[in-house]
Amino acid sequence: MVDSPTLEQIVSLAKRRGFVFPTSEIYGGLANSYDYGPLGAELLRKIRNLWWEFMIERRDDMVGLDSQIMLHPQTWVASGHVASFTDPLVEDKTTHKRYRADHLIEAWVEAHSDQVEPNFQVVDLNLETMAQFIEQHKIKSPDGNPITKPQTFNLLFETSIGSVSGEKSVVYLRGETAQGIFSNFKQILDSNRVQLPFGVGQIGKSFRNEITTGQFVFRTLEFEQAEIEYFFDPEETPWEPLLEEWKKYMWEFATEVIGLKPEKLRWRQHTDKERSHYSKDTYDMEYLYPFGWKELWGVAYRADYDLKQHIQFSAKNLEYLNPFTQKRIVPHVIEPALGVNRLFLAILCDSYVDDADKQRTVLELKPGLSTYKAAVFPLVRNKPEIVEKARNIYENLRKTARVTWDDRGNIGKRYLSQDEIGTPWGITIDYQTLEDDTVTLRNRDTTEQKRVTIAELSDDIR
Amino acid sequence: MVDSPTLEQIVSLAKRRGFVFPTSEIYGGLANSYDYGPLGAELLRKIRNLWWEFMIERRDDMVGLDSQIMLHPQTWVASGHVASFTDPLVEDKTTHKRYRADHLIEAWVEAHSDQVEPNFQVVDLNLETMAQFIEQHKIKSPDGNPITKPQTFNLLFETSIGSVSGEKSVVYLRGETAQGIFSNFKQILDSNRVQLPFGVGQIGKSFRNEITTGQFVFRTLEFEQAEIEYFFDPEETPWEPLLEEWKKYMWEFATEVIGLKPEKLRWRQHTDKERSHYSKDTYDMEYLYPFGWKELWGVAYRADYDLKQHIQFSAKNLEYLNPFTQKRIVPHVIEPALGVNRLFLAILCDSYVDDADKQRTVLELKPGLSTYKAAVFPLVRNKPEIVEKARNIYENLRKTARVTWDDRGNIGKRYLSQDEIGTPWGITIDYQTLEDDTVTLRNRDTTEQKRVTIAELSDDIR
Repeated sequence: MVDSPTLEQIVSLAKRRGFVFPTSEIYGGLANSYDYGPLGAELLRKIRNLWWEFMIERRDDMVGLDSQIMLHPQTWVASGHVASFTDPLVEDKTTHKRYRADHLIEAWVEAHSDQVEPNFQVVDLNLETMAQFIEQHKIKSPDGNPITKPQTFNLLFETSIGSVSGEKSVVYLRGETAQGIFSNFKQILDSNRVQLPFGVGQIGKSFRNEITTGQFVFRTLEFEQAEIEYFFDPEETPWEPLLEEWKKYMWEFATEVIGLKPEKLRWRQHTDKERSHYSKDTYDMEYLYPFGWKELWGVAYRADYDLKQHIQFSAKNLEYLNPFTQKRIVPHVIEPALGVNRLFLAILCDSYVDDADKQRTVLELKPGLSTYKAAVFPLVRNKPEIVEKARNIYENLRKTARVTWDDRGNIGKRYLSQDEIGTPWGITIDYQTLEDDTVTLRNRDTTEQKRVTIAELSDDIR
Repeated sequence: MVDSPTLEQIVSLAKRRGFVFPTSEIYGGLANSYDYGPLGAELLRKIRNLWWEFMIERRDDMVGLDSQIMLHPQTWVASGHVASFTDPLVEDKTTHKRYRADHLIEAWVEAHSDQVEPNFQVVDLNLETMAQFIEQHKIKSPDGNPITKPQTFNLLFETSIGSVSGEKSVVYLRGETAQGIFSNFKQILDSNRVQLPFGVGQIGKSFRNEITTGQFVFRTLEFEQAEIEYFFDPEETPWEPLLEEWKKYMWEFATEVIGLKPEKLRWRQHTDKERSHYSKDTYDMEYLYPFGWKELWGVAYRADYDLKQHIQFSAKNLEYLNPFTQKRIVPHVIEPALGVNRLFLAILCDSYVDDADKQRTVLELKPGLSTYKAAVFPLVRNKPEIVEKARNIYENLRKTARVTWDDRGNIGKRYLSQDEIGTPWGITIDYQTLEDDTVTLRNRDTTEQKRVTIAELSDDIR
């Protein structure tokens, strides 16, 4: 068993090979912001497409949606975000740097686990009990200075619509994609012949003005969510088995479709204090990141809280009419909410193998997640017959799969270069190829090489 | 030849069938903002995937990128957006409503074409000549009131990073995706073995704080772009044939891949005054929308303007080193920039057929663009054998294609309902099916019906 990679290894590979770059690096960067390079953009795209196919296309109780980032500001009043979508922040009294109070407490607890109750959970603390905890344990800033009492700060980004000053109206960048689903619930009912139970899913960017603590793409100001609201009538469909069903379905996606190792995944049930007041049960699917077990995917039973809030604030009827029984209800929801960038990071961590024996780094990605299915190498670049032969093979494979071409450096280095980005197969065209139409096919994970005929190649790669 | 649809017909269908909803309708809506419903989200997704496959995957001179919406603010100083990304606005002196000066002039010219030179182009006017034109022709607001002189207003949306007041730093929501490509140019060179000529493409949301004039999803505050920067050395690759090549490639995508009618598409060359000062040539691919010929896709030769600006403002070396000749250059670019939502609207307009003879509305979408490949209809819902047979067929087809189920209302209405959303095939399971395993297969465009065996179905639909 190979050790898990460190975050530094992941960050370094991601930058070196074009998965992830710090945003605006030429201008000194932007805090907690990352751009996805050529290989990262492809991996993100594959995650989105796999999610959409598994969650929407292959189920006939699901439809998709693509709502705006800027919604009517009243949406966020109704959802409770304007009032209480906040982080507890403290300030270093000397440097004036700001930190999340809960994160400082968490770090302190990790270092002093003997001084707290065994079942202590930071998430159970509120603003006041955090203040007491900080005072009692004299918790300092990371620079060792005293800190202020925690205060709450709203996480919604604000901007203004209207290009002439004087009459601007404030809008928020969405803090989650879910509210776009709730606020379109009536429009979806009116335009699609959906019947309960059914779900609505969407993928898109959300924004949270957070003070973050350097966990790479795990927590960023701008991030991508893939959220589902699954609507049902709790009298017809009991919520406990439905929640179980969704947990199984999510687990299947994470382990079978994406291929994450089950031993690095676990469910954690929210504590009573941690859970939102309207939720009857909430679970986090946690992944064992280099910085510990952290939420990858949440699933919450939110009852009818959100729709009821929107009914109250919009004064619109958002009830569902059962076409058979004529019963009207406000549906309840189960919400599986995935962080796309968190899954991206989990995939990199999960597939990263530091193969010291063979002095190489390998991304053991599932073939469906690698940008290229194979790399084609002419052994040398100064022998036109070999290059031409290789080019033919390359062009031929390209008709059915995405393959890459590399004719620089020695073959060993080219293999290693492809291992690092997860290309499952390497194909070398050499002098023997000119004689018998066979090539060397190399397996990324085993590094095993075998001679195969050109005719067999397509099948092997598929 | 059927007449082109009106915008009202498109808007009505889009809302009725769940392609497009006004954003936050339950809260009274948000100006020039639209959400994409279940069918719209699917069509958008198909456009993105087709574009990505055609522009990135099938070319080996292209890579993808996925940069943030929030970039370092200096990016927009370098690009010129902070100084000059503006609209000329006028205000109605009575109602204080605001309008784009060029749009008012355009509307006036349309109604008074005899009073201007035949080669008159609104785009040739600057702020001063617009003011003169408005004064000279006494142009009024749409409400018939006098208007102010035009003034420029910046289109970038502003927001602030940092969740504690006092130390907020202003950032802009990107006004185009292109600057994310330029600002990552060095990172892409360093991490990918790209050689000139090569291009970088990305799809994503952009934001412009515009006063718009009700052209549905054609011009919205928040919109989606699919932009490419194609980098080359003008001494190795002359720009004129390269620009021609891109125009052909874009045309092929619009007509062959997407299936737009060539007679509704044209190229329009920018006039000297209209073109940016650094651009040597620019073309718009225009589509004949219900409101006239308008830009769907632009392609501009921007020379080395953008990279040079970023070199100047970042003081970083963004040169390309030719690995064979060791020559260093700042590459030039050709920029094909597509409005994804504009293509979405063009597809709806282009495929909309008001088939009065048969009293139906049809979306003659290419099969690759329809959400469902086929709809399965049990003739009646109270005959279990028929329903079960239909269900088997449905489940079987679902393994290879996305199909939908409809058992409500009479068969004729169900066909019409599918015609409206562009489902190419209708499959009816009836009493005869129980005897001889044949079904009725109906063609959306011809409405022709034929009996086929269940075994033949899969092939027909593919």
